[in-house]
Amino acid sequence: MNNWGEALKISIFGESHGKAVGIVIDGIVPGFAPDMEEVGRELARRAPGQSGLTTSRREDDTVEIVSGLFEGRTTGAPLCCMIRNTNTRSSDYQRHLARPGHADYTAHIKYKGFSDYRGGGHFSGRLTAPLVFAGALAKQLLPGVNFKAKPELIGGVSPDDETILNAKAENDSVGGIISCVITGLPAGLGEPFFSSTESRLSSILFSVPAVKGVEFDNGFALAGMRGSESNKTNFGILGGITTGKPLNFRVAVKPTPSIGQEQNTIELTTGEPAKITISGRHDPCIVPRAVPVIEAAAAIGILDLWIAGKFPFIFD
Amino acid sequence: MNNWGEALKISIFGESHGKAVGIVIDGIVPGFAPDMEEVGRELARRAPGQSGLTTSRREDDTVEIVSGLFEGRTTGAPLCCMIRNTNTRSSDYQRHLARPGHADYTAHIKYKGFSDYRGGGHFSGRLTAPLVFAGALAKQLLPGVNFKAKPELIGGVSPDDETILNAKAENDSVGGIISCVITGLPAGLGEPFFSSTESRLSSILFSVPAVKGVEFDNGFALAGMRGSESNKTNFGILGGITTGKPLNFRVAVKPTPSIGQEQNTIELTTGEPAKITISGRHDPCIVPRAVPVIEAAAAIGILDLWIAGKFPFIFD
Amino acid sequence: MNNWGEALKISIFGESHGKAVGIVIDGIVPGFAPDMEEVGRELARRAPGQSGLTTSRREDDTVEIVSGLFEGRTTGAPLCCMIRNTNTRSSDYQRHLARPGHADYTAHIKYKGFSDYRGGGHFSGRLTAPLVFAGALAKQLLPGVNFKAKPELIGGVSPDDETILNAKAENDSVGGIISCVITGLPAGLGEPFFSSTESRLSSILFSVPAVKGVEFDNGFALAGMRGSESNKTNFGILGGITTGKPLNFRVAVKPTPSIGQEQNTIELTTGEPAKITISGRHDPCIVPRAVPVIEAAAAIGILDLWIAGKFPFIFD
Amino acid sequence: MNNWGEALKISIFGESHGKAVGIVIDGIVPGFAPDMEEVGRELARRAPGQSGLTTSRREDDTVEIVSGLFEGRTTGAPLCCMIRNTNTRSSDYQRHLARPGHADYTAHIKYKGFSDYRGGGHFSGRLTAPLVFAGALAKQLLPGVNFKAKPELIGGVSPDDETILNAKAENDSVGGIISCVITGLPAGLGEPFFSSTESRLSSILFSVPAVKGVEFDNGFALAGMRGSESNKTNFGILGGITTGKPLNFRVAVKPTPSIGQEQNTIELTTGEPAKITISGRHDPCIVPRAVPVIEAAAAIGILDLWIAGKFPFIFD
Repeated sequence: MNNWGEALKISIFGESHGKAVGIVIDGIVPGFAPDMEEVGRELARRAPGQSGLTTSRREDDTVEIVSGLFEGRTTGAPLCCMIRNTNTRSSDYQRHLARPGHADYTAHIKYKGFSDYRGGGHFSGRLTAPLVFAGALAKQLLPGVNFKAKPELIGGVSPDDETILNAKAENDSVGGIISCVITGLPAGLGEPFFSSTESRLSSILFSVPAVKGVEFDNGFALAGMRGSESNKTNFGILGGITTGKPLNFRVAVKPTPSIGQEQNTIELTTGEPAKITISGRHDPCIVPRAVPVIEAAAAIGILDLWIAGKFPFIFD
Repeated sequence: MNNWGEALKISIFGESHGKAVGIVIDGIVPGFAPDMEEVGRELARRAPGQSGLTTSRREDDTVEIVSGLFEGRTTGAPLCCMIRNTNTRSSDYQRHLARPGHADYTAHIKYKGFSDYRGGGHFSGRLTAPLVFAGALAKQLLPGVNFKAKPELIGGVSPDDETILNAKAENDSVGGIISCVITGLPAGLGEPFFSSTESRLSSILFSVPAVKGVEFDNGFALAGMRGSESNKTNFGILGGITTGKPLNFRVAVKPTPSIGQEQNTIELTTGEPAKITISGRHDPCIVPRAVPVIEAAAAIGILDLWIAGKFPFIFD
Repeated sequence: MNNWGEALKISIFGESHGKAVGIVIDGIVPGFAPDMEEVGRELARRAPGQSGLTTSRREDDTVEIVSGLFEGRTTGAPLCCMIRNTNTRSSDYQRHLARPGHADYTAHIKYKGFSDYRGGGHFSGRLTAPLVFAGALAKQLLPGVNFKAKPELIGGVSPDDETILNAKAENDSVGGIISCVITGLPAGLGEPFFSSTESRLSSILFSVPAVKGVEFDNGFALAGMRGSESNKTNFGILGGITTGKPLNFRVAVKPTPSIGQEQNTIELTTGEPAKITISGRHDPCIVPRAVPVIEAAAAIGILDLWIAGKFPFIFD
Repeated sequence: MNNWGEALKISIFGESHGKAVGIVIDGIVPGFAPDMEEVGRELARRAPGQSGLTTSRREDDTVEIVSGLFEGRTTGAPLCCMIRNTNTRSSDYQRHLARPGHADYTAHIKYKGFSDYRGGGHFSGRLTAPLVFAGALAKQLLPGVNFKAKPELIGGVSPDDETILNAKAENDSVGGIISCVITGLPAGLGEPFFSSTESRLSSILFSVPAVKGVEFDNGFALAGMRGSESNKTNFGILGGITTGKPLNFRVAVKPTPSIGQEQNTIELTTGEPAKITISGRHDPCIVPRAVPVIEAAAAIGILDLWIAGKFPFIFD
């Protein structure tokens, strides 16, 4: 289902080439005056068309706040935000050819051929725009908490190596690893077991398209240590609950599946083998644009635990 | 909160050194006759005291099914299972010293000094016994689906290297990486975004104490590939939805925090630095016993998606 | 929270005098082609301005389906519907005077003075328009199930007595009792206890503003019978589960609180006693317009149980 | 499903003639020392065998708290309570004859013949014992809030008329109406729409077997008033949110379906008409024993809203 959250409830909707994408956010305290310019800056970080490293496609992420805001402040009622789709070229998409590495095949199976195939439809990375919107609010709501993500590796090497341009030149793409550190967290967020900080954050982080791995506190490296060494880690989370120390996590992002090379695929209605060459404007690497999305997802996740844990909000 | 599941609802309870641990499972189809001997074998895989590689502490995991079973078959009403605690030595635990790498400190903060500290209380790995029970039922309920986990690396090396014995000899411990493959899954399980197969499985996998990393479809390795290569992966999940191919995932397990060496810690009530030497019988490596727990968590996660997706059950 | 549903998830948003009201509906099967003219007829039944018995205020309930529909059919992704607010006269509302019988006082307390006070804001009956939209879809989705509500008593007498006009002439209002019968239900919907058909339906029926009583199967009359008589009732629900017989229920609707007479109230910021005379265009009786809302709420409730119970959908 | 609650989560299990009935309660603040004698008194109010007006069957409601309590105080972890079934006479029940007015038929349909039929199994009023347990804790947790229910009408007349004895003498039964007043509530509990105080309370009140009607603030009588009169009501709830004034509600309880007279029924496996004479020890009127159950359900409901609204707890 397209709902997430225990104490803060978000509900996303929309398709890449439909009318709009959006989100309903329920559970925000009344009286909060969001800085909409800051929200705009966060959305701009995610927007395409910023450099040669990302797609030249432009998205006009003009946000309309439909409800929940009155005289510039939250009312306590659900906040609905809509972002209209404007710059779409549906003709770039072929209905019956499953793009490799995309959800086309699984969506076709699950939705019995009725899903909106254009640009990935509801599965599109475009749906992360409303997440960034919600994350921008969450960041502003959390007093003294800071979310800082950055690309750690791109295509297996340093982000400074410009491996993206090489891939782009070869009509190919690369993935990468994003690390994120959250500072300013109090001790005591989260619960044991099913609402552990790791469980809740991972569930929203894995909701971000292309994320295929998540670790906390250097998880995979920890697994190779001895206890005497691992116990000296400055854990951000112990027993599912935050320690009050910085919380580090890392996500693995797979390469953009849309590449300009001819690929083997299947025809969805017949199941027959076919060839596909994906045209259109695609990111040779989604990692730079995923950075603010990861921060946003983390901020939403922390805000949910914050509200559930009855931690205070301070704003004028 | 201690509840998990959208279509299948589980609710765990209990403490390591309290009366019992247990689970309530709601949403199981009526008419299913569980093979209790098979359930017992699964619990035995998790039980301590099986070899020199695990703790010599014995747990008598005698399961009492309190409700939901009538004449050997599920009734459709909630199934409650209790496992009494018998072989406990609470004197091994010191109330006011936080064991490094454990939840003692965070539990103290969160529960304001009222949590049951003995053996980790509600945070104990003992709570995974009811999870294994539920997972054993889930496995039996899922026709043709097979869950096979195994240690892939222990202490950073092959599980065959007996690195556990070296660590044990030095009053130390090691962690490891468990890989799991799920075969026999239909295409179409899961949802986009928040109920993606990755989101739902990771949320229950990260509920298992000591798990600090989860990847699907070789996630972190994928992040270093080019799209042209990554697209050739036999993905078990695309767009959050199963493809019908085998689903591979990996979890990182941190080393057992309880080690026999003297360690630095703090006194919980005063915050003063202190020394702690943990006595008692502890696993030098939790990985072998975590293997059936990981399978169980995955089976519960898949069963939840299975029911939500209205996939059929077949049993006589 | 503004979310409802176990298997079908709805999320409402909006304010009476804000930009729009709307709803996100998640969990609708793909491939369903809603009859939008029929949806429009349902909305028209709820719309004001239809006769002298209701307010002369017009609402232009033009529905925009923002997502979840592609080529006229549901895709399986969330369906978001928005209804813009157009014909609003906010000047009719005085910010600091609590209208008796309305939510003004409680909203002021709960939302610390930040709620949108205009026309009741998020508490407005205007929010039932999206409910009617969702209910119209639910009715079409449920094969062979029929929802038929009607006013049973208005102001304590027969709806034919035109007691509404008398009340209107005296700047007063009346409430009433709506009875509803649902036919065509299969046996087996609902669960014991917390998801009983009564629990689920009552929770959505009491969500409708002004509803203050709900009974099933002539509940309050049953309470005066002997068992030998009551057992002969054609119960629509037994043990929380539908019997397959017609399901009768009744709701009590309180009189419209907005009346043209001068009333005593308090000033919200000071708590001082005050006088209020409510101007504006208000229904002398909300019951006629509540009839389609009650049907809609019931249809949403039944659809949720229907999906949860895995009952089939049939549409071309 | 057998789970209830947004902020407080309860999960009930058990059958009338199985091993036990019980409840898991999650979300209770740590450090609370329940008065177990008071809990016992509440359970005793619900227990059968107290007078000639209730069944002579005895239930030994010995409560075992399995988890969540340490050194007499709540730990913050889930509290599981079990009540063993001891005094059961399963031979009183005939497997294939649906008792009129009971859930036997609907349970048979829903659970495909696999439900535990003995004494109503999971549908039994016996399941209200764990509810009373949870309610007793809830009452103690809520500072200054008082729940006072009483029979208002029994068999349509004053409870003082001893109509129960007349019905009993004729092998018949009677129902009744219970009124309840909650005092000491703060203003601001509850939400608009789906989590309105009425929605949440009604959903748990209708979970109590035999409850077929619920009204708040004299709901059905309000429906016959004019607005000018109704607006003068001391509403306990406006817009779904508590006003801080006493909250009055009423529930309709149908007559005990188990009566000693021969009745017409059907044979469940064949659907053939049959005669049934119910033996065993049954309440000629469930109303007196339902009084503490209604208080308990209301207390659980209010506690859930209390926690969600972040109202404070005060205990030594």
